[in-house]
Amino acid sequence: MFNFHYFTPTEVVFGRNAENHIGELIKKQGVGKVLIHYGSGSVVRSGLLDRIKSSLDDENIAYAELGGVVPNPRLSLVYKGIELCKKENVELILAVGGGSAIDSAKAIGYGAVNEGDVWDFYDGKRKATGCLPIGVVLTLSATGSEMSDSSVITKEEGWIKRGYSSDFGRPAFAVMNPELTLTLPDYQTACGCADILMHTMERYFTSGGNMEITDSIAEALMRTVIANAKILRDDPKNYEARAEIMWAGSLSHNGLTGCGNNGGDWATHKLEHEISGIFDVAHGAGLAAIWGAWARYTYKNCLDRFYKYAVNVMGIKEEGSKDEISLSGIKATENFFREINMPTSLSELQIYPTEEQILLMANKCALATNGSVGSARKLVESDMAAIYRSAK
Amino acid sequence: MFNFHYFTPTEVVFGRNAENHIGELIKKQGVGKVLIHYGSGSVVRSGLLDRIKSSLDDENIAYAELGGVVPNPRLSLVYKGIELCKKENVELILAVGGGSAIDSAKAIGYGAVNEGDVWDFYDGKRKATGCLPIGVVLTLSATGSEMSDSSVITKEEGWIKRGYSSDFGRPAFAVMNPELTLTLPDYQTACGCADILMHTMERYFTSGGNMEITDSIAEALMRTVIANAKILRDDPKNYEARAEIMWAGSLSHNGLTGCGNNGGDWATHKLEHEISGIFDVAHGAGLAAIWGAWARYTYKNCLDRFYKYAVNVMGIKEEGSKDEISLSGIKATENFFREINMPTSLSELQIYPTEEQILLMANKCALATNGSVGSARKLVESDMAAIYRSAK
Repeated sequence: MFNFHYFTPTEVVFGRNAENHIGELIKKQGVGKVLIHYGSGSVVRSGLLDRIKSSLDDENIAYAELGGVVPNPRLSLVYKGIELCKKENVELILAVGGGSAIDSAKAIGYGAVNEGDVWDFYDGKRKATGCLPIGVVLTLSATGSEMSDSSVITKEEGWIKRGYSSDFGRPAFAVMNPELTLTLPDYQTACGCADILMHTMERYFTSGGNMEITDSIAEALMRTVIANAKILRDDPKNYEARAEIMWAGSLSHNGLTGCGNNGGDWATHKLEHEISGIFDVAHGAGLAAIWGAWARYTYKNCLDRFYKYAVNVMGIKEEGSKDEISLSGIKATENFFREINMPTSLSELQIYPTEEQILLMANKCALATNGSVGSARKLVESDMAAIYRSAK
Repeated sequence: MFNFHYFTPTEVVFGRNAENHIGELIKKQGVGKVLIHYGSGSVVRSGLLDRIKSSLDDENIAYAELGGVVPNPRLSLVYKGIELCKKENVELILAVGGGSAIDSAKAIGYGAVNEGDVWDFYDGKRKATGCLPIGVVLTLSATGSEMSDSSVITKEEGWIKRGYSSDFGRPAFAVMNPELTLTLPDYQTACGCADILMHTMERYFTSGGNMEITDSIAEALMRTVIANAKILRDDPKNYEARAEIMWAGSLSHNGLTGCGNNGGDWATHKLEHEISGIFDVAHGAGLAAIWGAWARYTYKNCLDRFYKYAVNVMGIKEEGSKDEISLSGIKATENFFREINMPTSLSELQIYPTEEQILLMANKCALATNGSVGSARKLVESDMAAIYRSAK
């Protein structure tokens, strides 16, 4: 096992009517003015935003607001938010929504308390020395951003999508009411489940060091996600299954499932970033579409763990060689994706990249990863292109 | 499932040489003077204390010190610590040791920032409104106090042992180097493993509500503890096994294994408190000695979960009635305790309570729990006496 650092300070209030605690959670932070930050869709239509505003009014908490966050949240809105925070002396950002609203809030939070261009952090040029405290009202289980240290922002100029991780960006609190996710469209629910599963997989398929306790927690989490994603396919209003997925979403990206390993693989995520950068697909669907190609390209280099995964997570019988069992595990995972109507290839995503586009994505991916990515198998630009090709 | 609150702000630095980060962790808290708080045994003899002091000197961090914490830490030393903190303007307490040093530090921390008698909190008369920040250098895996909200203090007058839980008491940081536990005596190691196992069991055996993800994480954790406790019996210097147990100790008591359940059972802990109050036994051994009697008295009221535990944790084959399988799970747990040289009855602890002592313990236990305790089965004073009797 490797030494590790574990830090998950986010205070979580989980369950029915959890949003009733927002005022008290904000007051606990001892802050003044709040910026409510959100998208434009169901948060507004459902009346959730109005309920939050009136509960802040009731508690005499002053707030400004900034809506309009889009999926793959954009740098231009982040700049607008930073300006607003400075002008209005905002001391806490309350993100209402899913990963996009939260990630946008984190970027605004960095920009509000650090001098210079906030994009520098995403561009790897500097490190933030602080962030405004972030509060979250979660309405979508997927990215795990409600407890994680990471955020992903897209710069419109050149459509460059970059992530930045810092403990300063871990939310101070997160209000998680699974009821708020009951009416999500099936496709978004399934995309979220794929994303959650992948956050643990990225940490599980590594080349060196592992802790038994981390592995068995990760396996438990993956089994739970797979079982409950299937329940939600048939019964989207199942509160218990929504709760399992919501909590799994947080635990799969708060660090717990990576303790003692060597930092994770993250190749699937990096490969997907370039797909959704060019083709604007949903992140979870993009991950599902590329994973099988990545796994087949990689499993021989990480055979013991693909074997363990096949047996302990996908329930493959221990009959045959490790190779065969590992491949059965990969196939079973793809079958699971199909069962929840997720793609297992780019063509199932209605994406038909030309060879030129494949080389471009591989080149952008190599650039974004300083030349290589991956722990289960180290991938350079030619490997990336090969995986994109085999995922067609 | 029940709504829940999850808050584990403790920053953990885990692994070999983790103690090199103490200075940086203290500085991050932005505090002035530190109180180093410890026992009198191996922490001093091993040179660890001197290493910590010189690393604080190197970083120009001022400190006072207070040693002498004993197992079942005492109120009189807590009072002394509070006085010292006030006199020396201490702003952070660094506990070096196991649960006793940490619990004593928490009590001092409460007393230093709250007016009036700190015992009031333990006596259930008032609630603390704050605590000095606590840092931990962990040298013993057992109580989980390094991430938990709880502490247990013994008042010498009447030998009353009481716990107090508050989020204010959760340590700010914990340095966990499994190497520091390599030379622990076998008996202490085994007692720690029993304590850790029990922290998850207490949360697992509940009468209502549960989350699949919490259950499967709890089961994974219990299996890990059982497997690695046996490894340490034969190979006490096994770093990997020490690391598994150390991290399991923190996760089993930081709240993770109770998310969504109704708060846990805690009867075994409360029953044990009164045994160790009178007979001064090691906490983990006391828990092991009483658990079987509690489990047999209780399992029919919580059959589904005893059955699930037997199959998923103890690996009992699903042959026979739920009753039979549950009883086999209990028996297998007792066998595990025997394998690591833990007692499974009071007589194996060399304790032979008279009927008078049994009634006294039951009476004290009922008093400490406002008349009843337990979720798997609600126990009143007569039940408590019956369990003590059957544990003889």
